[in-house]
Amino acid sequence: MDERFTLDELKKEKPWLKRETLVFMSDFGLVDGAVSAMHGVADEVSQSLRLEDLTHDIPQFSIWEASYRLIQAMTYWAPGTVFISVVDPGVGSDRKSVAVLTASGHVVVTPDNGTLTHVAKEIGILERREISEAVNRLKNSQRSYTFHGRDVYAYTGARIAVGVITFEEVGPLLDGDVVKLHVEEARIEGDALIGSIDILDTRYGSLWTNIPDTLFAQFGAKHGDILHIEIKHDDMTVFGYDLAFCRNFTEVEKGEPLIYINSLLNVGIAINQGNFSERYRIGTGEGWSIAIRKSKRD
Amino acid sequence: MDERFTLDELKKEKPWLKRETLVFMSDFGLVDGAVSAMHGVADEVSQSLRLEDLTHDIPQFSIWEASYRLIQAMTYWAPGTVFISVVDPGVGSDRKSVAVLTASGHVVVTPDNGTLTHVAKEIGILERREISEAVNRLKNSQRSYTFHGRDVYAYTGARIAVGVITFEEVGPLLDGDVVKLHVEEARIEGDALIGSIDILDTRYGSLWTNIPDTLFAQFGAKHGDILHIEIKHDDMTVFGYDLAFCRNFTEVEKGEPLIYINSLLNVGIAINQGNFSERYRIGTGEGWSIAIRKSKRD
Amino acid sequence: MDERFTLDELKKEKPWLKRETLVFMSDFGLVDGAVSAMHGVADEVSQSLRLEDLTHDIPQFSIWEASYRLIQAMTYWAPGTVFISVVDPGVGSDRKSVAVLTASGHVVVTPDNGTLTHVAKEIGILERREISEAVNRLKNSQRSYTFHGRDVYAYTGARIAVGVITFEEVGPLLDGDVVKLHVEEARIEGDALIGSIDILDTRYGSLWTNIPDTLFAQFGAKHGDILHIEIKHDDMTVFGYDLAFCRNFTEVEKGEPLIYINSLLNVGIAINQGNFSERYRIGTGEGWSIAIRKSKRD
Repeated sequence: MDERFTLDELKKEKPWLKRETLVFMSDFGLVDGAVSAMHGVADEVSQSLRLEDLTHDIPQFSIWEASYRLIQAMTYWAPGTVFISVVDPGVGSDRKSVAVLTASGHVVVTPDNGTLTHVAKEIGILERREISEAVNRLKNSQRSYTFHGRDVYAYTGARIAVGVITFEEVGPLLDGDVVKLHVEEARIEGDALIGSIDILDTRYGSLWTNIPDTLFAQFGAKHGDILHIEIKHDDMTVFGYDLAFCRNFTEVEKGEPLIYINSLLNVGIAINQGNFSERYRIGTGEGWSIAIRKSKRD
Repeated sequence: MDERFTLDELKKEKPWLKRETLVFMSDFGLVDGAVSAMHGVADEVSQSLRLEDLTHDIPQFSIWEASYRLIQAMTYWAPGTVFISVVDPGVGSDRKSVAVLTASGHVVVTPDNGTLTHVAKEIGILERREISEAVNRLKNSQRSYTFHGRDVYAYTGARIAVGVITFEEVGPLLDGDVVKLHVEEARIEGDALIGSIDILDTRYGSLWTNIPDTLFAQFGAKHGDILHIEIKHDDMTVFGYDLAFCRNFTEVEKGEPLIYINSLLNVGIAINQGNFSERYRIGTGEGWSIAIRKSKRD
Repeated sequence: MDERFTLDELKKEKPWLKRETLVFMSDFGLVDGAVSAMHGVADEVSQSLRLEDLTHDIPQFSIWEASYRLIQAMTYWAPGTVFISVVDPGVGSDRKSVAVLTASGHVVVTPDNGTLTHVAKEIGILERREISEAVNRLKNSQRSYTFHGRDVYAYTGARIAVGVITFEEVGPLLDGDVVKLHVEEARIEGDALIGSIDILDTRYGSLWTNIPDTLFAQFGAKHGDILHIEIKHDDMTVFGYDLAFCRNFTEVEKGEPLIYINSLLNVGIAINQGNFSERYRIGTGEGWSIAIRKSKRD
């Protein structure tokens, strides 16, 4: 899971030809035929492709969440897996359509609109090419301008994964960096560990912060510690209590909040069998911050 | 994507034996085990089948939407793909269970209740056979009368796709036409192009009309034109403004409405990064019509 | 579908090696990357696995519903299919992680928290082993304590299904019975057939009782009979009418209630093209009971 590759290795080994797997993500939902049409286009390129879905319930146009969900699942797929992400508020605008090779050996086909923010930051991007739509476009789809996910991305991703085109044939190499959203850095400031609330564990309402378990350990936190958690929205404190740092949710009573390390190895705040973000009306993104301090009662 | 076949070609080539792909659609939702049970029945017929889903979120008993979603995705799947549709308000009634061959080389297994309306109109049906349930029914399922999707349709579709039965062994040939819902025709009347609002692009609230881009071009519309859009519910005008005909949503400001050609190559009305149908409270189906005229300000 | 195996047969034939199929169930929903991460872990174990989903919309922490949905779909999958269920309010607590062999020839990997209630009761469990997490855990996942579904269950299920480990290598054999939730038994009491309301057919609002069609026949019910249905919540009668026992929903008018045999061959109560549970505000589980009697008007 933690493999890293050089560009030379990827160019030589072409792991995507061995995996032949596409994983789709979008904000289309599953109520109409759009996702199925993308699968169909890929299946027509090759019947031997594995076709999978990451999620199609990214909130409409939320590039931040697309970027986050991509990093959440990507490294659990084998190197060579090709991801196709279609969260694209600027469809038809001048944002570029790209395919990238990541240092983890994955391929991502996506609009270059910020969707690659976390992948670039946490994994690294080795090469980025702009898709030449004149050649890499589903036959007879020229009259439709608005469904790049089907006509360009699914089609191109599938053709890379089975070797109909080489990675170089995607289109011209792009210099410089991918488009990135602003990302807050977790940091120790004086007696406090400061971070942001990146996202919710949607079903359970747990908060996922941007504080890695390694920084948390460096701050001195150990399982069993009682720590003071302060959550602010801009300058207003919305939550301020002492919580225990637990291995398991069941170390606290049902309904009681706790600190834990989530499945991405970042600090999370949850309620045992409850919904933290609903109970305390906590949001995510811009303006929401968390500060962790030693408990004064310790 | 735009291939057409004769009945002789299909009977001879049997493209479904080369694809071995089933695509399921229903109004079951995904919260219980019903869809999985259908997949399981098909998998038991053959492990080499590709099992895919078009959508299972067709509004309950909405044959119109089933018919529309089927045509939306079908032609993006290779000829030979077998579709299984189970939207069936009359389960157990005297509507017939059928399998059809389409001119596009696809097979559809469905209750003949209107689900084939758009396929018959826009693609054409070459042969229709009634499923003989006495022989084409999952073993030991006779005591269950209410789950034809699992016990008859999934089972029969899977057996066609792998050649356990020939298409002729589905059951007796039916004369005449499939059951069809009423479909409004788009048309030019005097200075106006008149159509209906077939369906919403659910996630984004865009209107999808029944006006093909070819008729729109014949009406004289060109990218960049400003056109007057009037949307009526029965005789009441609900929306009446001049809008631009755009290639890309981003040609208008965020929040501004526009005219575009959708992914099915019909005229659509949308808001750039907004929800048109919610903003203007526009519905679909019976009683909703759209008239497009040259702008008087032009 | 109704095959039964001995432990010896299963140990010798190892049907899972021939199916190489995983079916996932959880209460994770599909809006984030959690389900995809589980699929990715299984795909990395072997590309030849079929990866399927039963449902991921089990209500949060509802072990009862997980147990019920498992039995609803399981027997429609071929013997040898491996089910991975992750509905786990006690993640990290001392509930055991187990893999079991069922008399139907299926494997289930799950927390032993009641999820196996219906499988144990209606199919039977032949062997139960506790997963030794020290060896059966995704490499480098030791720092994450909260995602057993991905790090232990998906990984172990996949390795069983392709023979990387034998069933015995899962871990130590457990004596005694699986953890079971309380299950009400349907029974004839005097002139009445008494049962409970196990679950709703979610999309349509039909009631699914725990009364098998065999007991219903033994009670003397025949298609066409008019029977008196009384539904109580604790001691309060919420519904009390005469209804017809129908083969097909269309035997009654649209909007009219009826009695039928559902797809699990239990007695169900529904409205033709309507939602019974919403109309009459009927719930499920503890305290809800149904009594069926001959109609006095007969």
